[in-house]
Amino acid sequence: MTHRISEIAAALGAEAFGAVDLEISGVSEPATAGPRDLALAMDPKYADGLSQGKAQAAILWQGADWQALGLKAALFVPRPRYAMSGVTRLLDPGPQIVGIHPTAVIAPSAKIGAGAAIGPFVVIGDNVEIGVNARIASHCSIEEGSTIGDHALLRAGVRIAARVSIGHNFIANHGAIVGADGFSFVTPEKSGVENARESLGNQGDAQAQSWTRIHSLGGVTIGDNVELGANVTIDRGTIRDTRIGNGTKLDNQVHLGHNVQVGDDCLLCGQVGIAGSTVIGNRVVMGGQCGASDNIFIGDDVVAGGSSKLFTNVPAGRVVLGSPAVKMEIQMDMQKALRRLPRMMQQFRELQKTVSNIVQKD
Amino acid sequence: MTHRISEIAAALGAEAFGAVDLEISGVSEPATAGPRDLALAMDPKYADGLSQGKAQAAILWQGADWQALGLKAALFVPRPRYAMSGVTRLLDPGPQIVGIHPTAVIAPSAKIGAGAAIGPFVVIGDNVEIGVNARIASHCSIEEGSTIGDHALLRAGVRIAARVSIGHNFIANHGAIVGADGFSFVTPEKSGVENARESLGNQGDAQAQSWTRIHSLGGVTIGDNVELGANVTIDRGTIRDTRIGNGTKLDNQVHLGHNVQVGDDCLLCGQVGIAGSTVIGNRVVMGGQCGASDNIFIGDDVVAGGSSKLFTNVPAGRVVLGSPAVKMEIQMDMQKALRRLPRMMQQFRELQKTVSNIVQKD
Amino acid sequence: MTHRISEIAAALGAEAFGAVDLEISGVSEPATAGPRDLALAMDPKYADGLSQGKAQAAILWQGADWQALGLKAALFVPRPRYAMSGVTRLLDPGPQIVGIHPTAVIAPSAKIGAGAAIGPFVVIGDNVEIGVNARIASHCSIEEGSTIGDHALLRAGVRIAARVSIGHNFIANHGAIVGADGFSFVTPEKSGVENARESLGNQGDAQAQSWTRIHSLGGVTIGDNVELGANVTIDRGTIRDTRIGNGTKLDNQVHLGHNVQVGDDCLLCGQVGIAGSTVIGNRVVMGGQCGASDNIFIGDDVVAGGSSKLFTNVPAGRVVLGSPAVKMEIQMDMQKALRRLPRMMQQFRELQKTVSNIVQKD
Repeated sequence: MTHRISEIAAALGAEAFGAVDLEISGVSEPATAGPRDLALAMDPKYADGLSQGKAQAAILWQGADWQALGLKAALFVPRPRYAMSGVTRLLDPGPQIVGIHPTAVIAPSAKIGAGAAIGPFVVIGDNVEIGVNARIASHCSIEEGSTIGDHALLRAGVRIAARVSIGHNFIANHGAIVGADGFSFVTPEKSGVENARESLGNQGDAQAQSWTRIHSLGGVTIGDNVELGANVTIDRGTIRDTRIGNGTKLDNQVHLGHNVQVGDDCLLCGQVGIAGSTVIGNRVVMGGQCGASDNIFIGDDVVAGGSSKLFTNVPAGRVVLGSPAVKMEIQMDMQKALRRLPRMMQQFRELQKTVSNIVQKD
Repeated sequence: MTHRISEIAAALGAEAFGAVDLEISGVSEPATAGPRDLALAMDPKYADGLSQGKAQAAILWQGADWQALGLKAALFVPRPRYAMSGVTRLLDPGPQIVGIHPTAVIAPSAKIGAGAAIGPFVVIGDNVEIGVNARIASHCSIEEGSTIGDHALLRAGVRIAARVSIGHNFIANHGAIVGADGFSFVTPEKSGVENARESLGNQGDAQAQSWTRIHSLGGVTIGDNVELGANVTIDRGTIRDTRIGNGTKLDNQVHLGHNVQVGDDCLLCGQVGIAGSTVIGNRVVMGGQCGASDNIFIGDDVVAGGSSKLFTNVPAGRVVLGSPAVKMEIQMDMQKALRRLPRMMQQFRELQKTVSNIVQKD
Repeated sequence: MTHRISEIAAALGAEAFGAVDLEISGVSEPATAGPRDLALAMDPKYADGLSQGKAQAAILWQGADWQALGLKAALFVPRPRYAMSGVTRLLDPGPQIVGIHPTAVIAPSAKIGAGAAIGPFVVIGDNVEIGVNARIASHCSIEEGSTIGDHALLRAGVRIAARVSIGHNFIANHGAIVGADGFSFVTPEKSGVENARESLGNQGDAQAQSWTRIHSLGGVTIGDNVELGANVTIDRGTIRDTRIGNGTKLDNQVHLGHNVQVGDDCLLCGQVGIAGSTVIGNRVVMGGQCGASDNIFIGDDVVAGGSSKLFTNVPAGRVVLGSPAVKMEIQMDMQKALRRLPRMMQQFRELQKTVSNIVQKD
């Protein structure tokens, strides 16, 4: 698969200069580029790399002199990072999933849209409905009554449990699981944990008891353009559905508990965990390993730095950090103060002595 | 599947009033209930919802006037959360796993109890023994020599490695893994890490070395009524077995290292990680993303708030929070003080000046 | 499978005494040992256990009087923990994977080395190359164009995505995933998150936008002697490959983002997460649940205690702890000071009053 520089320019809305008929077959960092690679050199720091590599064409930083850099063709883009999206989409060969493999076990009542490719050892249950152009890799299972929109891509080993509803352009990486049972258990009498949560620390006189399951009768509803990373786990709801809005992306190993609601266009990075019934607004971004307690509200446009732990509601637009998470600037002040605390404690002891001497003298 | 109000009352030990022959086919939140749904309205805050929805029957809060609420039938339960357990169990259709699928690969030496349902592409190894009424969904594998008790439910893609022993009423959600190899490596000579652990920070003069595996000869032993969430991972023991007691529940993505022992009736919430050889008592509850170091002891009835990190032994009955975890009330005092610390540091500088002035005047 | 004491001594480079022709068939803790078990008693604390158990042979602590302990044979080793490696390797029966199962779907263009054992329902894609003596358990998938060296062991359900390159002696536990798509998204215009990262907290006036994928054109390159725990996830690179050096071991549920580079002989313990493009040196050890931000450098021989969160570069050889991670001794001083802070704040208020009284008196 090769592309002319002119085609790439058109796809990116970029300005192209020089030999725009040049064909490229891949992209590369400048220093390691071969003669048919498009070098990605959107920053002046890559100038040296260009002279080490063999690229004849590059995407360059604004103002670069492409001819002086020894290139035959050059592209200029207004927002380099956004251009990465277009150029990588163009050059991604995508996964090799072709036709419907004879080993796939597809229930007769399932409806599979036109153009589907289904890999070996896939299992599709009763009354499942899948839109057009689905690509379902090996070892996936889609359980009874679930629906998936058009243009879905499920990598190997994805599990969609029963009665899950998913929109268009869904992508799930390997091993992602949608619709596991919620983690919801109850004791016959009030438990020590319930007491401790209410009293912030006191378990009271609760007796030893065993846990009984609250079954998850709800499903999971997922909007359009949602992507799930590898080994993501999403629990079904207890009564209503667990929900994810449109355009939201979950990184590897993210966990969403039962009844959780996530809005539109959120990014939840690697290993984020959201406990049951918590509600997350639109365009929320949570860094890797963040956690949110159950039954809290996280407003629109909240940004949480890596490893932040959200124990209480967060108002819309706030940028938070730390555990427990507070406003980022407050957290940084707290951390700075904590760094100085051991030294300040020594100074405090000294000041106590000084004052004590003054008092005794009086 | 429908149920009479009277049947539900009997199952829950609830008091029923009105048209107890009414049949319901599902449960719902009050506001979205259809005419055949049982509305779950155990709190007065749901009164408005009941008038918005179409439920003819509801489980109500103590003291509610069901006739005034326009209902034809009503149920009253002493502990609403516990009633959720009974009513959801009654209405859960369960997963659709029927018969023994012809694609399943079952070793001739395996013993499968009566009433088993085994899905497509399941692999069951030599000398495996499984009790009665097992339901094993697609793509599961159970390796040689493992045993599972009666009434097991394995969702799709569960992996039970070799020589694992599991009790009755076992539930494992999709992708759970029992019996992976322990993470146990050693260098020929003492390593910098060993030195740093002993000295709390100093790696000494250890040489660069490679790691050699300590193989896991032990298995995993799991009691009765244990449930595992999606993508849980449990390592086998080195010499003795890793162990989980009766009635313990693990949420999604929980990780138990080699040789770990967990007692009875514990709850480990999402993404909890327990390092090797740590021992956890009975009825311990750990919130999401908690961690415990290797080789420590966590007593009976310990409760750890979300994201707590347990580095040292925790005595029985303690409620802990934070990283490092300390008694919850102490942690909250520390956090409150830390919030005030930046301002207090300014005041300290001022106080230093004041005292300095006094001293100079003297 | 039995072994003579003399064979074990030769394998371990150990000194053997007594009935070196005695055959043992397993190892055990001293107190539970049977007559054919080799008891592992490398510490004097096990003396009592030996008298409770039935072992006739043991590995003993230096200086132990094996005859007085009632043993028929004894082994002495210079470094007991290292001896565990040799003795467990000798006695590990390994997984039962035999022959090439007829259900495996292997592309005609794939090259499988001599001596391979491939389990049921394995899928191997076009142009895959696998070295000699591979053992690939059930339900694995290896996608097009990937290569794996000699002596590989893939447990059930491992996923190797397309264009991944792996060295010799590779071990992957159940459910490990290599080569998922990177988590890399971009908005058409600058987003609030980009602003917040640059300003450390201020999102500016960014508009609501949706995320567009940056596709992962790079692969994953893994060296020799690498081991992956259960449900590990490793993302492919954007342009260049994500890389892991030789001899590095990843525990269960570790997550490596796109473009990450990990050096040789590292240990990353359970649930560690490394965000995109971060570079980790050689012999780095990170305790369970550690996290590292994207685009940072972690030097050779760094040791990070459990749950440490690395937000910034860490120089070679440093031992760090906490969140944010700082030198271990500094962290411990900070934690000690924080424990004392609430009390010190009370004393500070008192000191303020005392000084205020002095000032007023003057």
